[in-house]
Amino acid sequence: MRKDYLQNPVKHIKINGTLTVNQLIQQFQRSGSFGAGKLARACNIYEKMLRDKDCTVFLALSGALVPAGMRTLIADLIRAKLVDVIVTTGANMVHDAIEALDGHHYKGNWIVDDYDLYRQHIFRIYDVFVAEEDYVKLDYQLAEMYRKIAIERKGTRLSSNEFAFELGKRLKDPNSILHAAYEEHVPIFIPAVRDSEFGYIHLLHASQENQKNILEVSAFKETPLICQICEKSPRNGMIVIGGGVPRNTIQSAAIAAKKGIDYAVVITMDRPETGGLSGSTLRESISWGKVKGEADKIMVIGDALVMFPMIVASVIERLGSDFTRTSGSKRRNPETKRKK
Amino acid sequence: MRKDYLQNPVKHIKINGTLTVNQLIQQFQRSGSFGAGKLARACNIYEKMLRDKDCTVFLALSGALVPAGMRTLIADLIRAKLVDVIVTTGANMVHDAIEALDGHHYKGNWIVDDYDLYRQHIFRIYDVFVAEEDYVKLDYQLAEMYRKIAIERKGTRLSSNEFAFELGKRLKDPNSILHAAYEEHVPIFIPAVRDSEFGYIHLLHASQENQKNILEVSAFKETPLICQICEKSPRNGMIVIGGGVPRNTIQSAAIAAKKGIDYAVVITMDRPETGGLSGSTLRESISWGKVKGEADKIMVIGDALVMFPMIVASVIERLGSDFTRTSGSKRRNPETKRKK
Amino acid sequence: MRKDYLQNPVKHIKINGTLTVNQLIQQFQRSGSFGAGKLARACNIYEKMLRDKDCTVFLALSGALVPAGMRTLIADLIRAKLVDVIVTTGANMVHDAIEALDGHHYKGNWIVDDYDLYRQHIFRIYDVFVAEEDYVKLDYQLAEMYRKIAIERKGTRLSSNEFAFELGKRLKDPNSILHAAYEEHVPIFIPAVRDSEFGYIHLLHASQENQKNILEVSAFKETPLICQICEKSPRNGMIVIGGGVPRNTIQSAAIAAKKGIDYAVVITMDRPETGGLSGSTLRESISWGKVKGEADKIMVIGDALVMFPMIVASVIERLGSDFTRTSGSKRRNPETKRKK
Amino acid sequence: MRKDYLQNPVKHIKINGTLTVNQLIQQFQRSGSFGAGKLARACNIYEKMLRDKDCTVFLALSGALVPAGMRTLIADLIRAKLVDVIVTTGANMVHDAIEALDGHHYKGNWIVDDYDLYRQHIFRIYDVFVAEEDYVKLDYQLAEMYRKIAIERKGTRLSSNEFAFELGKRLKDPNSILHAAYEEHVPIFIPAVRDSEFGYIHLLHASQENQKNILEVSAFKETPLICQICEKSPRNGMIVIGGGVPRNTIQSAAIAAKKGIDYAVVITMDRPETGGLSGSTLRESISWGKVKGEADKIMVIGDALVMFPMIVASVIERLGSDFTRTSGSKRRNPETKRKK
Repeated sequence: MRKDYLQNPVKHIKINGTLTVNQLIQQFQRSGSFGAGKLARACNIYEKMLRDKDCTVFLALSGALVPAGMRTLIADLIRAKLVDVIVTTGANMVHDAIEALDGHHYKGNWIVDDYDLYRQHIFRIYDVFVAEEDYVKLDYQLAEMYRKIAIERKGTRLSSNEFAFELGKRLKDPNSILHAAYEEHVPIFIPAVRDSEFGYIHLLHASQENQKNILEVSAFKETPLICQICEKSPRNGMIVIGGGVPRNTIQSAAIAAKKGIDYAVVITMDRPETGGLSGSTLRESISWGKVKGEADKIMVIGDALVMFPMIVASVIERLGSDFTRTSGSKRRNPETKRKK
Repeated sequence: MRKDYLQNPVKHIKINGTLTVNQLIQQFQRSGSFGAGKLARACNIYEKMLRDKDCTVFLALSGALVPAGMRTLIADLIRAKLVDVIVTTGANMVHDAIEALDGHHYKGNWIVDDYDLYRQHIFRIYDVFVAEEDYVKLDYQLAEMYRKIAIERKGTRLSSNEFAFELGKRLKDPNSILHAAYEEHVPIFIPAVRDSEFGYIHLLHASQENQKNILEVSAFKETPLICQICEKSPRNGMIVIGGGVPRNTIQSAAIAAKKGIDYAVVITMDRPETGGLSGSTLRESISWGKVKGEADKIMVIGDALVMFPMIVASVIERLGSDFTRTSGSKRRNPETKRKK
Repeated sequence: MRKDYLQNPVKHIKINGTLTVNQLIQQFQRSGSFGAGKLARACNIYEKMLRDKDCTVFLALSGALVPAGMRTLIADLIRAKLVDVIVTTGANMVHDAIEALDGHHYKGNWIVDDYDLYRQHIFRIYDVFVAEEDYVKLDYQLAEMYRKIAIERKGTRLSSNEFAFELGKRLKDPNSILHAAYEEHVPIFIPAVRDSEFGYIHLLHASQENQKNILEVSAFKETPLICQICEKSPRNGMIVIGGGVPRNTIQSAAIAAKKGIDYAVVITMDRPETGGLSGSTLRESISWGKVKGEADKIMVIGDALVMFPMIVASVIERLGSDFTRTSGSKRRNPETKRKK
Repeated sequence: MRKDYLQNPVKHIKINGTLTVNQLIQQFQRSGSFGAGKLARACNIYEKMLRDKDCTVFLALSGALVPAGMRTLIADLIRAKLVDVIVTTGANMVHDAIEALDGHHYKGNWIVDDYDLYRQHIFRIYDVFVAEEDYVKLDYQLAEMYRKIAIERKGTRLSSNEFAFELGKRLKDPNSILHAAYEEHVPIFIPAVRDSEFGYIHLLHASQENQKNILEVSAFKETPLICQICEKSPRNGMIVIGGGVPRNTIQSAAIAAKKGIDYAVVITMDRPETGGLSGSTLRESISWGKVKGEADKIMVIGDALVMFPMIVASVIERLGSDFTRTSGSKRRNPETKRKK
């Protein structure tokens, strides 16, 4: 019916004085259009995931989120039990470890002489700078950890989440994502663990050990665990920052578990037209059974460094300080059992 | 020197409880990277423009901002004297007039059968719907206004800003951008006025009048005024939403005035690689003298429906309720003189 | 039925030896997916427009196409009668005039010190450079043309297409778009004519003439003509490069003419999510009646400097050297009549 | 000097009759601006890589290239010895295997009811459809291959390139990328092998085998090999389609080998502003030492399904039918030695 199309007038955004983040998001909810409407919807969906006691919240991390300032935010989400499972690129955990070992990321500039940076042994990530010595320190300290883990684990092959767990145990920085996840029993999956400094630290470790007693990480060993988490959880929600391997891993686990995602928020700048997974729409994901047809879902086109903190701030404000949530890991994380 | 590159460590974003919009922006200021750093910088620059008593603030509007919920926000900025000159597409003023004449925009959806909408006489702007009858009402009421303006002005050719002024005088809705600008003597330039429903209302008007005594709008008449405003103002700042004709018009006025823009914020999703003006960098604008080499400037890549309200909310919070500003139009707007 | 979805297997692209452009496009037709499928479809649609004797072909130009190398291509299309009507930004015609007056555009670089360019009086358009002296020459020679046109036209107001026609008559360079259009009676509409150097040349002209006997261009006068062209043509096709005012002008003319576009190719990098017209899908245009529900239409996401020449090369190859087409302007262009 | 900026005038593109792909690219070379200039430069760089007898050519594949029609093109490049090493997502090899086992990809549509596709057991990749039964067939046939490989390899852990080699040996389709690479001794690295159907086939395989005698793939084992290839090659060139793990893997190998890439072509739609590796500029890569400061390099912003075939067609035309090249794998591929 025609009137169904014309039910909800756009209410114009009004800013009269100081607004909290959630008050602004509520304005976006009322205007409800373009990126503002999508962002408001993303907040609603994340809130729903958290209030649904039967939902496991997966967080996918890709892009240089940790170098750019999201490290504490994510560690705090883990400690507040507002995320249950993390799937990430190796690089984000490498940068987490750099700071855990007293290294830094620096505010830089995107217009700079990169060859001069190269000569100065400074690496650039858009407008973030990293000093080579922080990488060198990382390499040697982590190679030493690899050695100890290999000894402890006596040649058994680790999954990427066990590898993350072992690192988190040893990186005793309260702001570290790896350490917070270790303490809170939040599994961190790193499906492409080799494609990051972790891979080259492995080269160093292997050369130090003369190729003997080296740490073994299995490419496939993590697969059953993430599928089981999906399978055992009555409902599954995902928040995807970026796309790539982390998004694909969660969606594929949902298929393998024959469940389909129930709640989905994707924050990305990628678009569907060139056919890559990172930009694929959540509607496309329905055809595969990755996301349920009736799922609450939204794709926010924007920079995650702005969008994700807004979503978190809005939802934390909504939940209030009394809100508590039992982490999904309490029921599920096999690491917990293994520790006993 | 190497240490110059490594001075300011990224401080990680922390959200512990309810934050105001500006508190979140301050977090972005401290992390300072990627889109978050740029957004924080944009807030700083707009604040500076407003605190600089010698700066005229130009606001460029393109894209469907009014249909999507920015109408009241912009009208309020005009009334609060936080913007001095507007350069806009015709379409945004058309949609302002639609609401001033009791029409509406509706929250819709971007996945919809457009042919069904066509049959139902509903027009779609991404996820906003407009009913054809609101356009028809607009057409007839504005054609009547055109007739009266033509009679009053007795065949003199209007500039686009005089045209906007005459409409604003007659659209007596306090939330109307055109009306607020009329009341506050903020000139609204519409360089491509013909490329919008205003052009087709002119067809209707001309047919109603048998091509006699029709409203004349000159393509070039507005040019000297906008150049003079730039020229007489000690400093000029621009906030560009989108790009296209409105951005180009302000930048070209700055060249013609031999001044160059002093403060610039551009919010867009366009990129420079395909060479269009909308995505051109502010650095590129320096080569032309459109923007000064030492200008405070930033390009925010993002959806204006999210970014611009955040900037406004942050800056209003910073300014506080006691802040007052003398509108640039007090000194400058020739409309003011004409009225006496 | 399920089998309807699974009828046409992707045939993989095969390059064995030298291919003509159209042979490669035929490969894209057979693979048929992502950008390659869309590009092949765009070629088919342009070919159809040209073979449909009752179709008027509108070409919309936005972005810095002329500075970057598309000037001769467009002039040749006009002379070959493969385009009937042009709607363009002012800037493209300004750059056409610069070369007609022996100015140049230079291959430059996008990584360059823009402040040094500014000091050297060189303007940058992404990776194209223009020398200020070529603008100065343009300004003075066109101001002189404005003077002569104003005298000839004795104070009657010109439409933007009459303005373009008068310039084309005087710019006697066979490679000039304006001149080719003048000779071939192809109307060039410049709805935002004031927003370009043409506007600032008008300032110069007016100051030289002491504000007397100055060239008058009407904002609205062109509107009836473009609507009539649409109305009288049994079918209308558009090829849009970029978006903005030129795309909007053609689509609005189609509504005013109560016709709807029959064939549409849009080449752009803009996307729909932020609601701007330039990125709006052709499906969205159906709701308005701008494009017909059953229209042959495709939106190619890509750089026009690559995509448009590929389309033209493919279609010229298909048409062969014997193909002739009667230009739509023969039947329609009022300029032709006016000349007699 | 000023004249240095103004040396090379843009020569306008001219299409007079049938052009070969390389003739069109030569036009782009002469116009030299925006996307056309970049594409022409990419062709020059790939040609240079191939004519440099001391250069190893790495090809990075991400995005759904095989489903969309690039399978034969890549297999032919391998057989023609125009690529020496491949680094790919798992998914592209999964889709290669689907076709090797007589499955298909179908030309579909991006506007479709995805829930209907879901009910019909059809999966969508933008505008490509895949039938579930082709995945099921793949699962069972590959699980059987896994079993045989596990038996042959007797529990030794494979690297991802050994895994690809074993599959290629068994998939006896001449158009298969995996098979062509096997025959030509071109190593295929799949650093995130687990993140694709290969991971879920492993689940199936493990369940069939009751978790005994299962195929082991090591996450890190491939790392030394790709580093050695870089190290031993006097010069290294990369062509990156997309970005993600494959691009990162090649660039990281270049650092580990202390070499830096000498020639680089990246084809992507990603942009640098949000800080992800996929959109990072090649200049940024210089700061890391991933790409040499003096490298011949270009980033082409566009759809790889159009851009890469154009580059290949242009370069094959330039090389002519007499050109022969000794594959880098002749000297390097350890698989070759292992086979003896």
